[in-house]
Amino acid sequence: MSKPLNIGLIGYGFMGRTHSNAYSQVSHFFDTEYKPVKKAVCGRDKEKAQAFADQWGYESVETDWKQLIARNDIDAIDICTPNNLHSGPAIAAAEAGKTILCEKPLAIDSEEAEKMCEAVEKAGVPNIVWYNYRRIPAVTLAKQLIDEGRLGKIFHYRANFLQDWTINADLPQGGAALWRLDAEAAGSGVTGDLLAHCIDTAIWLNGSITDVSAMTETFVKERMHNLTGKMEAVKIDDACAFLCHFGNGSLGLFESTRYARGHKALYTFEINGEKASIRWDLHDLNRLEYFDHSDDSVVRGWRTVHITDGDMPYMDHWWVPGLCIGYEHTFIHQVADFLKSLETGEAAGPTFRDALETQQVCDAVLHSAKERCWTDVAG
Amino acid sequence: MSKPLNIGLIGYGFMGRTHSNAYSQVSHFFDTEYKPVKKAVCGRDKEKAQAFADQWGYESVETDWKQLIARNDIDAIDICTPNNLHSGPAIAAAEAGKTILCEKPLAIDSEEAEKMCEAVEKAGVPNIVWYNYRRIPAVTLAKQLIDEGRLGKIFHYRANFLQDWTINADLPQGGAALWRLDAEAAGSGVTGDLLAHCIDTAIWLNGSITDVSAMTETFVKERMHNLTGKMEAVKIDDACAFLCHFGNGSLGLFESTRYARGHKALYTFEINGEKASIRWDLHDLNRLEYFDHSDDSVVRGWRTVHITDGDMPYMDHWWVPGLCIGYEHTFIHQVADFLKSLETGEAAGPTFRDALETQQVCDAVLHSAKERCWTDVAG
Amino acid sequence: MSKPLNIGLIGYGFMGRTHSNAYSQVSHFFDTEYKPVKKAVCGRDKEKAQAFADQWGYESVETDWKQLIARNDIDAIDICTPNNLHSGPAIAAAEAGKTILCEKPLAIDSEEAEKMCEAVEKAGVPNIVWYNYRRIPAVTLAKQLIDEGRLGKIFHYRANFLQDWTINADLPQGGAALWRLDAEAAGSGVTGDLLAHCIDTAIWLNGSITDVSAMTETFVKERMHNLTGKMEAVKIDDACAFLCHFGNGSLGLFESTRYARGHKALYTFEINGEKASIRWDLHDLNRLEYFDHSDDSVVRGWRTVHITDGDMPYMDHWWVPGLCIGYEHTFIHQVADFLKSLETGEAAGPTFRDALETQQVCDAVLHSAKERCWTDVAG
Amino acid sequence: MSKPLNIGLIGYGFMGRTHSNAYSQVSHFFDTEYKPVKKAVCGRDKEKAQAFADQWGYESVETDWKQLIARNDIDAIDICTPNNLHSGPAIAAAEAGKTILCEKPLAIDSEEAEKMCEAVEKAGVPNIVWYNYRRIPAVTLAKQLIDEGRLGKIFHYRANFLQDWTINADLPQGGAALWRLDAEAAGSGVTGDLLAHCIDTAIWLNGSITDVSAMTETFVKERMHNLTGKMEAVKIDDACAFLCHFGNGSLGLFESTRYARGHKALYTFEINGEKASIRWDLHDLNRLEYFDHSDDSVVRGWRTVHITDGDMPYMDHWWVPGLCIGYEHTFIHQVADFLKSLETGEAAGPTFRDALETQQVCDAVLHSAKERCWTDVAG
Repeated sequence: MSKPLNIGLIGYGFMGRTHSNAYSQVSHFFDTEYKPVKKAVCGRDKEKAQAFADQWGYESVETDWKQLIARNDIDAIDICTPNNLHSGPAIAAAEAGKTILCEKPLAIDSEEAEKMCEAVEKAGVPNIVWYNYRRIPAVTLAKQLIDEGRLGKIFHYRANFLQDWTINADLPQGGAALWRLDAEAAGSGVTGDLLAHCIDTAIWLNGSITDVSAMTETFVKERMHNLTGKMEAVKIDDACAFLCHFGNGSLGLFESTRYARGHKALYTFEINGEKASIRWDLHDLNRLEYFDHSDDSVVRGWRTVHITDGDMPYMDHWWVPGLCIGYEHTFIHQVADFLKSLETGEAAGPTFRDALETQQVCDAVLHSAKERCWTDVAG
Repeated sequence: MSKPLNIGLIGYGFMGRTHSNAYSQVSHFFDTEYKPVKKAVCGRDKEKAQAFADQWGYESVETDWKQLIARNDIDAIDICTPNNLHSGPAIAAAEAGKTILCEKPLAIDSEEAEKMCEAVEKAGVPNIVWYNYRRIPAVTLAKQLIDEGRLGKIFHYRANFLQDWTINADLPQGGAALWRLDAEAAGSGVTGDLLAHCIDTAIWLNGSITDVSAMTETFVKERMHNLTGKMEAVKIDDACAFLCHFGNGSLGLFESTRYARGHKALYTFEINGEKASIRWDLHDLNRLEYFDHSDDSVVRGWRTVHITDGDMPYMDHWWVPGLCIGYEHTFIHQVADFLKSLETGEAAGPTFRDALETQQVCDAVLHSAKERCWTDVAG
Repeated sequence: MSKPLNIGLIGYGFMGRTHSNAYSQVSHFFDTEYKPVKKAVCGRDKEKAQAFADQWGYESVETDWKQLIARNDIDAIDICTPNNLHSGPAIAAAEAGKTILCEKPLAIDSEEAEKMCEAVEKAGVPNIVWYNYRRIPAVTLAKQLIDEGRLGKIFHYRANFLQDWTINADLPQGGAALWRLDAEAAGSGVTGDLLAHCIDTAIWLNGSITDVSAMTETFVKERMHNLTGKMEAVKIDDACAFLCHFGNGSLGLFESTRYARGHKALYTFEINGEKASIRWDLHDLNRLEYFDHSDDSVVRGWRTVHITDGDMPYMDHWWVPGLCIGYEHTFIHQVADFLKSLETGEAAGPTFRDALETQQVCDAVLHSAKERCWTDVAG
Repeated sequence: MSKPLNIGLIGYGFMGRTHSNAYSQVSHFFDTEYKPVKKAVCGRDKEKAQAFADQWGYESVETDWKQLIARNDIDAIDICTPNNLHSGPAIAAAEAGKTILCEKPLAIDSEEAEKMCEAVEKAGVPNIVWYNYRRIPAVTLAKQLIDEGRLGKIFHYRANFLQDWTINADLPQGGAALWRLDAEAAGSGVTGDLLAHCIDTAIWLNGSITDVSAMTETFVKERMHNLTGKMEAVKIDDACAFLCHFGNGSLGLFESTRYARGHKALYTFEINGEKASIRWDLHDLNRLEYFDHSDDSVVRGWRTVHITDGDMPYMDHWWVPGLCIGYEHTFIHQVADFLKSLETGEAAGPTFRDALETQQVCDAVLHSAKERCWTDVAG
């Protein structure tokens, strides 16, 4: 028997689209008891919100998120606003007993994130954060391979997330799609935007990070600000790299930038274990590379595994072997898992608490870069 | 102002799913005057048809395609049945004045395909065939590059479509998903199933094929037949390769098989021109490889272009640079283009007439293989 | 105890260099009883021959190959002349009881090649043909893997050799380095020059070819002739492709051209067997790609094996794992194997007789292309 | 007119072979006034030294390097001993007025290296250090592209050198080929052995490094020592990673390890500039990857340039386009350039003084790792 989960979406930007698509698609491909219902979308600009509702089939529109949270016909609040606008709605929604799905990073900093954790835990409401890359089938498979012990003891973890879209110094900071360049809205630059993804995946795959040594750089020091109309100092990090130790004794190396000419969204990681290694790359997300030292030596090499067969994670829900899926499928998988978790009562990570740990690593990274010293991760 | 296009779908197998997904998704991403409405699905097994309708949101169910065609509330008939069941519904739908979308290959052979062309042309109804790979953005871009003259005079065209799913001799032929191994339902083996795709793309990109020399092979001579329960001779071609000449003087080389261990759906093509070359591969469908001889010699090499930026074909409708799309998007693009064509009156290919040419090449290939001689393509 | 093998080299062009390098290097890396001694080089232009001798350390120079063959201090004749000048020296050398190393293709056609076989066999002299690509370590490994049965029954063999150096219509035909464009000197175009390599490897790896259907093309119909100073018809094949059957029931597809923009010396082959497949590419000669269907399905994929470890063929003679070798090493390996064969008395292929079979396939290919019909391979 | 350069080689291990090969080959491929003559090889074990001399054609043997340096018939001393045995012979050779070619890293530490610099500079003798990777044609081309300004302002430099040969804890440390695991002979582990290569290339391509933050790890704490026969603490670094700033404002990220399962000698670097980026990988040394932002956007992508055409650095001396060279060619190129420098009087880097800078970075890296703090590079 089917049960509705009435969704109230806050924000209708890029992430509003990816989430709405997931709600639209999940029941075509996954069989879950709970079915999302696109009940309402909330945005400050009523006309734009209505246009979004029309395109995606939301039944109604709100312009004040407090109104949205107050509605009895809303079961779950999905937060797609800039980073500095997560905690308000999240805490209010928790207090109202709503289920919460929150965009990443969870908050501006750990302190705020901790309050959000406390709120959802006190209220006992189901909660999840949209670190969607865990649910790329290749990444989920990586988790399985590690958990099965195929890699053995881990020596090295390295990840990077490279882009090149802000090299142009004429690009402004500020409103609309450019809030990611504005420290007030974003909290940090690539650290919260991109490295947070790398860190979430890393902790999930390889356990906790204990200490970090980081450096950050802001290559373009001033940019026109869209909202003030003036050249203003850029306060976010354009690039960030850090060394770290994991609790399991392995060494980590992370890097992110928006100044790597030639890369659009090159999120890659590689893990070297005693027995095997794996490698993955978002630009070719349907593949996982795998090296198994136990292979016969004359035919031992990196394997490029096309993650499309029906026995791969999630792939029995899609097409036939050899046929690719794309970026937006990760959100569909996350909704499917989350709906399933409502049925079973077993949380589908990353919960707010899981996301807090990523936030603590980000905080340590930013502190280390500022103070030029090794910094322990709190927690 | 929005106009509905009421769809009646015949068949609810694999292709029924890809088309239904396209109807569900197109209006979320493309702004077209006509909006598809999933009105009815038709299948012989009422229960299964109903389950499909429930999952995909079809309003009603039919068990007889003649009933479906007879309905006044149906504007367009979409044919997703095995190859031997295309012409009946298509001709009847044309006579009833319905718009028609037909799965590929158009028919069992050219003779049947010719009748279907005559029917739609006599009726003057919009028609299209689901050669979906034209609408992979990388493939559409290839067409643009060629039409702009970037390759110059073409010398070589080579394509293959390699799979490995029928190597196991215990795999039966016959009913349900296995009709592709049954000559009665499929007409031919890899020629109609896979090479037809390669030929459609080739003609689109490089013009007509004039003559062919082909060989076919059936590696497993007998398979259990699901419907008769007996071992029966396998009458389809397991593998087919052919040499050909194009009208523009270039040489062609085509191969398809279901016995290429290690390949799931490896559809690739490469085109060598005087000035530039291009290469593409379905396993990595978001990329196009391009070699430009006019580059400075010390930095001249094959480029791997990630076809995800907003200025690539169709990609302004999806996500941001670097983020992949998948297989099913080709069908969404085809529906978007077809809906647009209803608005403009300018046909979005491939029409039945276009698909007839592919059928004629397939017929020549099968004739050449049987008679062991070069065979001219009719038409 | 070391024994000298006194070499008399005929021709000092490109192949003269690769062979001379092999004679210079073999004893630095391989421990053989016979040591080649660079005794004499023979060329019509005495000055150029002397310069070559000086550079490579040949002790003396001849300008008439008959004189060279007549010398008592010469043990082995190495023939590096254009194709039409192989049989004369080879037959004379055999009659003089010399060991013979002959460049490929063995002769202008099978008839001539047959006479050369008869001559060396009647004389009982050691003989070998420089199909050097057999001794790329990755290719030698491919042979081992097939012979061990790792691929199982073979279904498909495809190979091509793609170049782009004659697209420019202003390139002349004729003398010096351009004899390969002159039918008189070369016999054929890409068929004897490039496909002969592909065919030699194919027969070695996959057994005899029984029949072929081929097409050839000459894209540039006339070129200035260097020797006559006039525009003359181009009589060689610029491109050639053929379908074939192997004696073991597998299907073959071969292609070669000098008009594939973007490829310099792209010799590739792929073999698909029931249990495994392999792929190789001269542009990345230190790698072999391997797919093994018996791998666990979730980590099954094409492996890229870097053929540099000490347990790979020939590689214990070179550097350490991960460090590449290059093109010229194939000739060193061939000399090493040939010297060893003189010690053991067991022929190191390809012998003249082996090379005759390749010639017969080439003849069948050229006949098939001319007559537009399937042609059986003689022999 | 040809002039001999009489070589006295100290050490006949792996590097003794690569250098001897370079002396044997250089005159076959490069036209230089000075020609190396393999005069004498020096090693403590007379029998082994003699065997090496026989194999490589050295005219004589010494067992005491002081004797070798004392010989009047020796022009140049080539030092191929473990790291702790460089400075003694180098300083003595300088004092004796000999030309010196010294293996890398120059010394055990900067202090020792500084003394060696002073010695050669005081003596005014030609000197060079075997950082051979500068002379991979692809790397030399990278230098040219950067110097031409094709990359514009540089933002990022990242390099790593990954191996996996010491994962096995049963591998001993100590004598013979295993001196690289013994801190006494090697000074450090991967830092001096592998990162030194990365640093030399980086400084050459991107200028000086100003400060570093590093971490090192020794995964296997104890190993059997070959010379003492006892388990002894491992004092070298098994892995080392560091962040750094370059003088030009770009950020650097370096990593090296012998515990990266699946990598044999994976030396890679990537440089991101405002206008273009480049990438290179020792496992595929004949290729350079290049991304040029000024390409038309629809065909913009990473180019894989096969560095084999005659207009590429050094490649006019080898074969024809498309044909690979290998690892040992780098040493031949270095000898060719060094011989040329003797002719012109213009030093062919890296000189001892150049190599000192690399040593200073290594020292800063080891200091930073030990003290867990950012460390300025001396100099």
